[in-house]
Amino acid sequence: MSEYIAHDNEGRTVGKVERKYFTFAAPPNEMVLDSGAKLGPVTLAYETYGTLNENGSNVVLVPHALTGDSHAAGYYSDNDDKPGWWDNMIGPGKGVDTDKYFVVCSNVLGGCMGSTGPASINPDTGRPYGMGFPFVTIADMVRAQKALLDHLGINSILSLIGGSMGGMQVLQWAVQYPDMVRSAIPLATTMRHSALAIAFNEVARQAIIADPNWNSGNYYDGKKPDLGLSVARMIGHITYLSDEAMRRKFGRKLQGKEDFSFNFEADFQVESYLRHQGAKFVERFDANSFLYITKAADYFDLAQQNRVESGIEAFSRAVARFLVVSFTSDWLYPTYQSREMVKAMKKSGLNVSFCEIEADWGHDAFLLPNQRLTNLVKGFLESVYNDT
Amino acid sequence: MSEYIAHDNEGRTVGKVERKYFTFAAPPNEMVLDSGAKLGPVTLAYETYGTLNENGSNVVLVPHALTGDSHAAGYYSDNDDKPGWWDNMIGPGKGVDTDKYFVVCSNVLGGCMGSTGPASINPDTGRPYGMGFPFVTIADMVRAQKALLDHLGINSILSLIGGSMGGMQVLQWAVQYPDMVRSAIPLATTMRHSALAIAFNEVARQAIIADPNWNSGNYYDGKKPDLGLSVARMIGHITYLSDEAMRRKFGRKLQGKEDFSFNFEADFQVESYLRHQGAKFVERFDANSFLYITKAADYFDLAQQNRVESGIEAFSRAVARFLVVSFTSDWLYPTYQSREMVKAMKKSGLNVSFCEIEADWGHDAFLLPNQRLTNLVKGFLESVYNDT
Repeated sequence: MSEYIAHDNEGRTVGKVERKYFTFAAPPNEMVLDSGAKLGPVTLAYETYGTLNENGSNVVLVPHALTGDSHAAGYYSDNDDKPGWWDNMIGPGKGVDTDKYFVVCSNVLGGCMGSTGPASINPDTGRPYGMGFPFVTIADMVRAQKALLDHLGINSILSLIGGSMGGMQVLQWAVQYPDMVRSAIPLATTMRHSALAIAFNEVARQAIIADPNWNSGNYYDGKKPDLGLSVARMIGHITYLSDEAMRRKFGRKLQGKEDFSFNFEADFQVESYLRHQGAKFVERFDANSFLYITKAADYFDLAQQNRVESGIEAFSRAVARFLVVSFTSDWLYPTYQSREMVKAMKKSGLNVSFCEIEADWGHDAFLLPNQRLTNLVKGFLESVYNDT
Repeated sequence: MSEYIAHDNEGRTVGKVERKYFTFAAPPNEMVLDSGAKLGPVTLAYETYGTLNENGSNVVLVPHALTGDSHAAGYYSDNDDKPGWWDNMIGPGKGVDTDKYFVVCSNVLGGCMGSTGPASINPDTGRPYGMGFPFVTIADMVRAQKALLDHLGINSILSLIGGSMGGMQVLQWAVQYPDMVRSAIPLATTMRHSALAIAFNEVARQAIIADPNWNSGNYYDGKKPDLGLSVARMIGHITYLSDEAMRRKFGRKLQGKEDFSFNFEADFQVESYLRHQGAKFVERFDANSFLYITKAADYFDLAQQNRVESGIEAFSRAVARFLVVSFTSDWLYPTYQSREMVKAMKKSGLNVSFCEIEADWGHDAFLLPNQRLTNLVKGFLESVYNDT
């Protein structure tokens, strides 16, 4: 049984979860990053759910999206009012069933929730890295996760599952460490970050950089660039929804008033929602991490990342079985991008299933409770598990 | 023949254009705005192209979009390197043929290109209005244009043509002054600003407000909120394009380099493009005007604006013949919104033609040279002109 506080399908509380840390790549054995820069020591914050079986054949790795963290499921304590970010998918009896699988989730390299990132102390200076932090790529994030799995004694992954930037890591894992990855579930993602997605990230970055409190990344002793980061997050939230999702959720409903204010207060609910999301985000996220991680996503092109000419060539290195899922209203990584990915996988001779799920909630759909998605994931994992 | 510098279809230079000013509503006869506030005196900057015919039956009024101005066509001088913003549509022999029609374009109330707006001097204080400027709505903009036409001795409009926020004014004109408007061509617009469109405008406004140089709108004596306004414009430019448009125009092409910079410079062409658009915009536009005008667009709901229950009820007041045009890749005001508008017009018994033009360039498509659009507009205007 799982050893963490989680709610099973009957709502009972079971076990407890805990954030752990693993540190590696201490000098002189630093990580060599894609940029050529060296980084070390490196710490990854991670959590695990469920129990590793004797032959180590039940590992599910969950890379997170842009602003996620290692806390994917369960509660830290009985008083915790919020579970991990994917608690509807991961837990006892759920889509990723922690009664069967050993689930690992780590905060990405460059992040700000316990893993080494720009807010971490640079051992050379005794001060936060800030803009002195080296660039990281999706492949660098995957390299760091590989070191964590080595440390945990894991040499085979039953499946990887992740959406958005988590999906990019899923793809990169399958190509970078093909012998370790038996199956992979990229959700709501792309093998090539589009001009539109880059454009949104760039404007979000410029909002941060425009904030004088950003101060070239040196703000850890003073005021933080909260206003800039808040605008950046608001831009993100627009891309996570969709025209249809916003229409259903907000329409032109006013925020607690009968008529227009004829001033610059939030008249519409959608304005309040965005302001609230922005204000909440700055309490938990580091602006420099946002800069680095969005840039890593922008750089992601599976072919380029693996120094080959095409997605087909990149996938030719993989052996995993794939389940690719897209969502009808996702306009950040639209279905046509998943189809391109699936086409490249098939041309590489890979075993791939593809499903486009009808969902109104835009890109966010992959994170929301969805019985269809849960059933797909559950069935796929069982099938792969039984095959081995 | 037209009396301004313009290029005819053979590229010859003909005539000259000039920005003119009309001032009205001097105290105690101020304009009463939708908000109940009074404003006066009010100046509108305007330009005209072509010649008013004897019976005044050849007037085409061109309301502009968010950041447009009165300079819709032609050149100010022989040395001018850029014509007006819709010179591909308006001119001798063009879609709106200035050899036949008398074209009027004025800068909107609340604007910053010669018309009274937040950057204008408040006669009560002797200083710029700033946030002391009263709120304006689309109907207020239309009211001001009506005063200008009265001044010009025009009591009948052959046609109104405008895209985006210009299209909102077109709709409002037809409902507000039905007896004056014989036909109307709303392009790439909506009768009800959507949650998505409001969301983009709100984030853009927050980017300006987050800039400390904005200083609650009091920046006319000091540094302007250029960084915030630049981010706001970058957001706008994303909405003016589309996924497809960005893919074709930029894809993942790098900006003058062979490989990634691994820093926060603009690696991708799309990043350079957005930064350039932002930087250029702050030279010509007032941040406070941006706040007021985006809010006017957000407030726009044809029914609500006219204090009736539905679009159908609003259009029931109109008598104009309509040509509605949408563009396939416009995701700011998608075709389904034009279809809703057309449906409401038809239910009101109006004579309406609708065309969705296949175009990859997103919302911007209405401004770009497009032979199909030109032909449609030309044919429609001729037909209306010959009918009378």
